[in-house]
Parts: sequence; structure tokens; C-alpha cells
Amino acid sequence: MVVSPIRKGTHTRNMIVEKAAILLNQKGYIHSSVYDVMRETGLQKGGIYNHFRSKEELTIEAYRFAVTQMRIEFEKALLEAHNSLEALFEVLEVFRNLAHGHPLKGGCPTMNIAIESDDADPVLCEEARNTMSQLHKTVQMVVSSGKTRRELIPACDPEQVATILISTVEGALMLSKLFQDTVYMDRAVTHLQSYLTSFVSKREENQGENAYESK
Amino acid sequence: MVVSPIRKGTHTRNMIVEKAAILLNQKGYIHSSVYDVMRETGLQKGGIYNHFRSKEELTIEAYRFAVTQMRIEFEKALLEAHNSLEALFEVLEVFRNLAHGHPLKGGCPTMNIAIESDDADPVLCEEARNTMSQLHKTVQMVVSSGKTRRELIPACDPEQVATILISTVEGALMLSKLFQDTVYMDRAVTHLQSYLTSFVSKREENQGENAYESK
Repeated sequence: MVVSPIRKGTHTRNMIVEKAAILLNQKGYIHSSVYDVMRETGLQKGGIYNHFRSKEELTIEAYRFAVTQMRIEFEKALLEAHNSLEALFEVLEVFRNLAHGHPLKGGCPTMNIAIESDDADPVLCEEARNTMSQLHKTVQMVVSSGKTRRELIPACDPEQVATILISTVEGALMLSKLFQDTVYMDRAVTHLQSYLTSFVSKREENQGENAYESK
Repeated sequence: MVVSPIRKGTHTRNMIVEKAAILLNQKGYIHSSVYDVMRETGLQKGGIYNHFRSKEELTIEAYRFAVTQMRIEFEKALLEAHNSLEALFEVLEVFRNLAHGHPLKGGCPTMNIAIESDDADPVLCEEARNTMSQLHKTVQMVVSSGKTRRELIPACDPEQVATILISTVEGALMLSKLFQDTVYMDRAVTHLQSYLTSFVSKREENQGENAYESK
């Protein structure tokens, strides 16, 4: 088969983005240099800058590639769930897998960019803000739909649940990566499973009050 | 008053460490350069390397200075508490203050170093591991002492509580910094207050079971 130059160019560009995503998610998005990407891809500087106007453009493409990998996992998780509690549990499993290096090594790309960029790089910070905002809204939407379908009790606040879920798994991911021990993530998931279960509507009890959060 | 050269040297060294701590906690520990420190301190390169053998030595000193600022806050918090629940609540307030930029701008130095270094710098990563491990043990110790004094129920697991507390506030701090909105930290603190209160021993009920975590 004859590969057209345009297709070959796209192939090389995709290869650079993919390898850069893995590299930058581990070594840092802002400060990894184009030389690091050259080492990883086996390309010369010119071979990289043929495809990207700047290191910044490559960084953002690599980050978006990493985010897409995560989004695929979240979408699969949500598709597999039969109700809102299962959907939230599946989201927790995506984070548990991330602590095991799947689908990406280096942890959560958005937390990594957030920590690196929040006081240092407004453009990347805005990217992280958009992605994190989408994740927060997805969790809120699952909770709201669960309330509408009376699977979750009325006292369950979508914004509160989204913040607690995301904060806890992101913090636990940081601990698990730091100590190279997934027990921290396991504890966080166990805790959040209990927390979320406490919002499950007991229809036979006429949607009784949540004994925990409504104290 | 005549200032001796030795005292002047110590004064300059301390000034460098203090300014570097503020800078590196915001702009990054690994990748901020000695030129950034020069700009911040108004010193020439030689004036800095008079006091530190390397950028790495300055980075570690700056990080330890930042950690000491945090440790002072934790110690004050623990001293003010009358029982274990109050002590845990006070620890939460230290993190809430941190989301407001007190005592340090730039968030939690240990989380910052953890995210930057876990796949990139073994020496700094080990520093972060030691500090985080100490914080984890402090929370565990407060919980254990609360159980011994029968303020907290026997089912309350010190390691679990320490992981949940630290994960949730660290994750919330990341969100609050990213969105420049302390509501995320406020939600985390409210959640953890409920969570911790659910472990309080009800002596009149013969230390009844925890309705939440023991589900």
C-alpha cells in the first residue's frame, strides 16, 4: 500500500501527541522541554516543529489527548450503569484504575495541570478549569437524574456530592502516587461508596431522611 | 548596632529561603530557576550561591521552610483543642485557611511537591513522602487518643480517617485554587465535619454503632 504524504504526516503528528501525552503527564506539562519530546519520539526538533507551531501548542494537544483517554473511560463507565448509584460507583472505579496507571500513567492529567499551572500559566490553567468543570457537571448531572428518577433522596445536593467525590478521589490519587500504594485510593472508594449509598432512596420508607448528611 | 558578618550572612540566607519558599510554592519547586530567585531577592547569582551549594539545596530548604509554616499552624490548632473531635476540626480549619492563602500562598507545599516530583524527582519526592507521612500519623494519633479516651467509637479506624481527611481537603484545595473559589473547600470541610461527628461516642447510648461507616 502506498501511504500518501498527508496521511503519513497525520500519522507522525498523532504519534508525537500520543508519546508527548504519556511523557508530560509524568514529567510535567509546563516544564518538560521539546528535547524530552525529541528523546521520546526519536525525531529531530524540526521534525516536531513541522507539526506544531510551538511547544505550547504541542502541550495543549498532548493534554487534550490525555483528557480524551479519560473521557472515554468515563463514558464507558456511565454506559455500563443501570442506575445513578451504579453510575457514581463506576466513576469511582475509573479513578481507582487511574491509581493503577490505567488508561494513563502519571495520574489525573487535569489535577497535574491544575497544580502546575494555577499560579504559573493562565492558558493551561483555563484548559484544566474547563475539563474539571465538565467532570464536576457530569457528576452533578448523574445525581440530578437520580433524584428525578427517585433513586436518590431529595436532600442529596448535586454540587456538594460532585465536590466531595472529586476532591476525595483526586486527593487519594495524589497520596497513592506519592506512596506508591493504592491502599489510599481503596480507602477513598470505600468511604465514597458508603457516603453515596447513604443517599439511596428507600421507597418502602417513603424516602426516609439521610441519617448522615442531614445531621 | 554593629552587625557581625556572620549574623548578616545568616540574615541574608534566611531572607533567600523565605522569599524562595513563597516563589517556589506558587511557580513550582523543580522548575523555577535560580534567575527567578534572583529577581525575587534582588541578589546576584553569586550572592545566592554564597549561601547554597546548589539550586537543589535551596529548593529543599525553601520547601522545609514552607512545611515549618504549616507545622506551626497544625501545632497551634492542636493546642487549642479540648478533645479529639475539636482537634480534627481545627486541622480542617488549617486547610480552610490555606485555601485563603494563609500562612502560605500557592496551596499545600507537600501536595505541590508530590504532584511535581512523584514521577520526576526522587529526592524531592522522598521529602514530600516524609512530610505527608508525618501529617497522616498526626491525624491517626489524634483519632487513636480519642478512642482511648472514649470520645470516639471503637469502629473509628485511625488510618481510614486520616486518609479520608487528608485526601478530601487536599483535593478540595486543588479545586478551590483552580477555580479561585473557596466554596469547594467549604463543602469539603462541611462534609468532613459530618463524617467525623458520626464517630463521636454517645456514652449514654453505651457507645452505639456508627450509623454511617458501619453500613
